[in-house]
Amino acid sequence: MKEFELIEKIFTPLTQSPQKTNHKTKLSNPNILTKFDPLNLQNDVAIIELDSKSNLVLSKDLMCEGVHFLKSDDGFKIASKLLLSNLSDIASSGATPLCYMLGFTKNNSLTKTFYTEFGRALSKIQNQYKIKLIGGDTSNSKSLHYSITIFGVALKDKLLLRQNAQNGDFIFVSNTVGDAFLGLNLKLKNSANLKTHEKKLLDKHFYPQPRIELSKQLVEQNLSKCATDISDGLIADLTNICNASKLNAQIFLSQIPISSSALKYLQTNSDLSKLDLLSGGDDYELIFSVDPKNIHKIQKLSKKLNLRLTCIGKFTNEKFDKKIYPKKFNVFLFNSAKNISPDNIINLNKKGYEHQ
Amino acid sequence: MKEFELIEKIFTPLTQSPQKTNHKTKLSNPNILTKFDPLNLQNDVAIIELDSKSNLVLSKDLMCEGVHFLKSDDGFKIASKLLLSNLSDIASSGATPLCYMLGFTKNNSLTKTFYTEFGRALSKIQNQYKIKLIGGDTSNSKSLHYSITIFGVALKDKLLLRQNAQNGDFIFVSNTVGDAFLGLNLKLKNSANLKTHEKKLLDKHFYPQPRIELSKQLVEQNLSKCATDISDGLIADLTNICNASKLNAQIFLSQIPISSSALKYLQTNSDLSKLDLLSGGDDYELIFSVDPKNIHKIQKLSKKLNLRLTCIGKFTNEKFDKKIYPKKFNVFLFNSAKNISPDNIINLNKKGYEHQ
Repeated sequence: MKEFELIEKIFTPLTQSPQKTNHKTKLSNPNILTKFDPLNLQNDVAIIELDSKSNLVLSKDLMCEGVHFLKSDDGFKIASKLLLSNLSDIASSGATPLCYMLGFTKNNSLTKTFYTEFGRALSKIQNQYKIKLIGGDTSNSKSLHYSITIFGVALKDKLLLRQNAQNGDFIFVSNTVGDAFLGLNLKLKNSANLKTHEKKLLDKHFYPQPRIELSKQLVEQNLSKCATDISDGLIADLTNICNASKLNAQIFLSQIPISSSALKYLQTNSDLSKLDLLSGGDDYELIFSVDPKNIHKIQKLSKKLNLRLTCIGKFTNEKFDKKIYPKKFNVFLFNSAKNISPDNIINLNKKGYEHQ
Repeated sequence: MKEFELIEKIFTPLTQSPQKTNHKTKLSNPNILTKFDPLNLQNDVAIIELDSKSNLVLSKDLMCEGVHFLKSDDGFKIASKLLLSNLSDIASSGATPLCYMLGFTKNNSLTKTFYTEFGRALSKIQNQYKIKLIGGDTSNSKSLHYSITIFGVALKDKLLLRQNAQNGDFIFVSNTVGDAFLGLNLKLKNSANLKTHEKKLLDKHFYPQPRIELSKQLVEQNLSKCATDISDGLIADLTNICNASKLNAQIFLSQIPISSSALKYLQTNSDLSKLDLLSGGDDYELIFSVDPKNIHKIQKLSKKLNLRLTCIGKFTNEKFDKKIYPKKFNVFLFNSAKNISPDNIINLNKKGYEHQ
């Protein structure tokens, strides 16, 4: 059973069962969840109403040995990636992180040093983001799994939601795209004597930077209503916004911000291209929608945060021939904004720069 | 690193880091967590304040292949045990269950039937307890893991807390002790042609009955302030209450309620004794403290719920010789209430009915 089918047929119905609440508290109708896609992707959040003004924002993420990390990764790196990527979910919703619960399996392969380093990483991140651990569970198991449930708090009218992109909104991305994916690529090659730019890419893989401050400013200044992180890859996560907002996206390859480390890496690794960075995943930058009237404020914010914020395209209800693009909502990639026509769409399904 | 050490040295400090909240909501001080033992045992809960009157009660549990279930267990059974045991955590806190998040790994070994049955079990339980799924995450992995974060709601002054047992309180247990443990024992033997009493024990293993209604009545009628489920075994979980409440417990073997199915099973399986049922685990009955003045109300409640509620002993600050019992707080087991003396304490560390 494919994941999509599993979610649609088995789990989505479970989110819709009617709930008769008779709690003698203010929580008479505490869930507003139909706006979200439970069990869909890593950057999903669920919501429980706290009061008339504020929501508790929740996200649950798994990390599995051999999938999200290698057995050879040390405790500091695993814990960092685990907690930072969960914080990114909170950032993508516009919430302020509050606390988290931790579940993990363990076995004899793990040393005291592993756990000391694991705890040291959590402690460092907790202090940085002013959050704390509130509970959890552990079990023995042959294979290592980590699971975090993270909690944030947001004012109700200040949530960044996938379905809120508007026709004509610009699409912005924070920092650069693809570094963490190349870092993962490097890790899997397990090469010794890394060069400076390679070390930078590896660091981006192990230590994502959740864009909490950016997200906070976006909601406080009313600069965006819609964001997601690109942990599944820019194209995949942008497609999620398109589907939720019932819009298409046009993005421009020449405008995608690529770091100098990534460019250097691509120059010496001919098996990978810029296009791979768009679908690579493992990145925790934010993409967000911006009303064109706010573009100067975004530029100002970029300076204030000392964080690159780049317009890479726009949301549109413009459609192309349905025979060629059978999906209802699509991300169309062009080389630049100067040549928007069906003939110039870059085919994302084939490797390399082939045109449709 | 042992689990106890891991929790004390690595994870407990992470629950105590100061939190400077500047959320523009009512959540200026949303955590009351020092009363709880995060990351300790399965029946722990954490708390987030909802408002001045009510709390959100949270619990996170893992279930791992080869530890909590076998690969041969079907989807209906795995999902049932997963959600019902999590509901038991909510019951043990006196809260009303609200909703849950689900994380799970998957691989090609699982069929469509597995997932259909998995979903059918969740749906059945959701309807019974009026809860729903609100989100989650999934990942591929060689070994199967399930993780639930469950949410309940409770009035602040109506929580059942481990540290609330009082000197002189009676200790009650719901239903019978040890059936699920014997069911697990039976499952591991994998025998064919099960007899009726064996099938009953197996069912108790696969389908725990969270004591939500009992718990609700206990808090609503102010009959108890302290409870836990006995998922780690009656002795272990009672010891947790003793440590949290700074009291000893005296319990009486002759008063422990054992089902006729369990008695029949013990008669034909000489490798197991009644004593094993006290430390067996896998049970989801509640133990709770009762002020002696409320004993008639408990008897009335037992009739109302049609649920056996048995007094098995009492909490006491009475101590025995520290050389023999080096731990600060202990559960002392006697054959009956008639012979309480150090000489008659049944040694729980040795198998069988040996006296100290």
